[in-house]
Amino acid sequence: MTEENGFSCPLPFHENAVVTLAHGGGGSLTHQLIEKIFRPAFDNPDLETEHDSAIIEVGAGKLAFTTDSYVVQPLIFPGGDIGSLAVNGTVNDLAMSGARPLYLSAGFILEEGLAMETLWSVVQSMKQSALSAGVKIITGDTKVVDKGKGDGIFINTSGIGVIEQGVAIHPSQIQSGDEILLSGDIARHGMAILSARKDSGFQNQIESDCASVAGEVLSLLDAGVRCLRDLTRGGLATALIEISGSAGVSIEINESEIPVQENVKGACEILGFDPLYVANEGRFVAFVNPKDTAQALSIMKKASADARKIGRVTEPAGKRVTLKTRAGSSRMLNMLSGEQLPRIC
Amino acid sequence: MTEENGFSCPLPFHENAVVTLAHGGGGSLTHQLIEKIFRPAFDNPDLETEHDSAIIEVGAGKLAFTTDSYVVQPLIFPGGDIGSLAVNGTVNDLAMSGARPLYLSAGFILEEGLAMETLWSVVQSMKQSALSAGVKIITGDTKVVDKGKGDGIFINTSGIGVIEQGVAIHPSQIQSGDEILLSGDIARHGMAILSARKDSGFQNQIESDCASVAGEVLSLLDAGVRCLRDLTRGGLATALIEISGSAGVSIEINESEIPVQENVKGACEILGFDPLYVANEGRFVAFVNPKDTAQALSIMKKASADARKIGRVTEPAGKRVTLKTRAGSSRMLNMLSGEQLPRIC
Repeated sequence: MTEENGFSCPLPFHENAVVTLAHGGGGSLTHQLIEKIFRPAFDNPDLETEHDSAIIEVGAGKLAFTTDSYVVQPLIFPGGDIGSLAVNGTVNDLAMSGARPLYLSAGFILEEGLAMETLWSVVQSMKQSALSAGVKIITGDTKVVDKGKGDGIFINTSGIGVIEQGVAIHPSQIQSGDEILLSGDIARHGMAILSARKDSGFQNQIESDCASVAGEVLSLLDAGVRCLRDLTRGGLATALIEISGSAGVSIEINESEIPVQENVKGACEILGFDPLYVANEGRFVAFVNPKDTAQALSIMKKASADARKIGRVTEPAGKRVTLKTRAGSSRMLNMLSGEQLPRIC
Repeated sequence: MTEENGFSCPLPFHENAVVTLAHGGGGSLTHQLIEKIFRPAFDNPDLETEHDSAIIEVGAGKLAFTTDSYVVQPLIFPGGDIGSLAVNGTVNDLAMSGARPLYLSAGFILEEGLAMETLWSVVQSMKQSALSAGVKIITGDTKVVDKGKGDGIFINTSGIGVIEQGVAIHPSQIQSGDEILLSGDIARHGMAILSARKDSGFQNQIESDCASVAGEVLSLLDAGVRCLRDLTRGGLATALIEISGSAGVSIEINESEIPVQENVKGACEILGFDPLYVANEGRFVAFVNPKDTAQALSIMKKASADARKIGRVTEPAGKRVTLKTRAGSSRMLNMLSGEQLPRIC
């Protein structure tokens, strides 16, 4: 039994146990991995470890279905790890469609030589995140690739959520005049990953905003929200540019209304990043009819005091996203062609 | 425009175009990948490329949900590629639960430097396999990892299928006396992968059995089948050992009834593999009440003339799987602890 990262690992593995190719071979070592690590962590009545699929009962209606693979480096960072990210990221994608997240799958691609303790710790984190978000992990898969053909742990989570009757959250619902609400301060996740990298040369500890927003979003659905979008890869700017294109509308936002923590702002300035394009993992924007803004904002402020109105949908023509800067000028936001920060999720 | 593997690639990429980290960054190159490769291939009314989840309508009842990651090497092999494998493998897992496969997700983890032409060709193969199996790919994700941190292409597919009322396919349904039917000759997929490897030193071309069995299985459901299991990692022996354990029954099979192609048998002998433990990707066993054997077998023989009855469920005690050899002796089959063939799926 060893202690690391605050976990005590009750595995019958010796202290320096590592994942081998045979753990992915479908034989007795694969079964040991399931019985000793996955089944105890993900235990629930719908979990299926002895058959090819999990079986769930649903009522007639609409379901949301989504998938994401997670390849973040480092695997563990301030405010989270690849496990919490893999649960919260997919939970949030379901929530952004107006769905109540219910079930997740978990597919692991492990690199030969991975410390068993690291896998265990990541799986414990998935367990905790799933409990917090109110979802069940009910089906899974493990593959192992040769050393040097992977990078520790990659995780795919796919998710199923149920959409209540009458809920229609989509870019096509957006109307001219809608107001845009932001759920909190931005750019923390991307800068937390960057500052956690050994080669970043950056000492300032920034904590990721990685969290489930499903509870907050379910309350918002009653407040007449028309569209939601989480601000992951590409950050706030990319999310708004995508929505502007999909919905065929223009958008105007005010830089002075967009909260960025001082240490995050400082890190962005030093390292040359624009916080508007830096990834978040627990932040979203909501598009609402102005008559619903007060109610929606009061719900959002309960989750984060930094939530605020940052702009509005203007005339449909142009499909532009315009930023009113602090200095009083305006500039158009464009999609980045390159990669700001590889492997932040 | 280039021609390779019988495909003509209509991409606006130059002939030597490769995947870069920026293709996974969520910016304009990610969008280009979606618009030029994924959307045209997976086009269907339920495909969602502009929102966080796909939305599907379902009737009240039972759904099957499953996931698998695919890390096969080489990416392209006789009889299939990682794309057809990723579709058929997950389709077959749904079918093994008695479900009609309906929807798939597709999560790609690409290695920086991958030839764009290879990605395109694999995606075309997924398109064809999905059409053949009658499933729609409706949601997806792409990540790119640095060169040397992946291995060309890894694919996760998760799947949703619907289970008709009254269908209950599970190890717990198996009864003493049930007969065991095998859907065709075994061990081709594993040996096809092995012989396709550059370092195998093996020239004999063996074609994988990779295929959807969903159509065949849906017909079988009307013939009163009690349990189904596909014979993937670990092959026929591992599948039967797992079922014996889950169902709490013993199983007896006859070696002389198990079809293995001559070239596959030869390759196994030369290379030291037991065909009973070699992976298949289009083969399964069905457990049936003896009164239903004739009907079930006639359905299975339509899909493969090699389908046949290979054994039966004996007394519950012991949970043993026994092989009656051609020589007339008996031996107990045990789960392998090691890895016969890494990365065959």
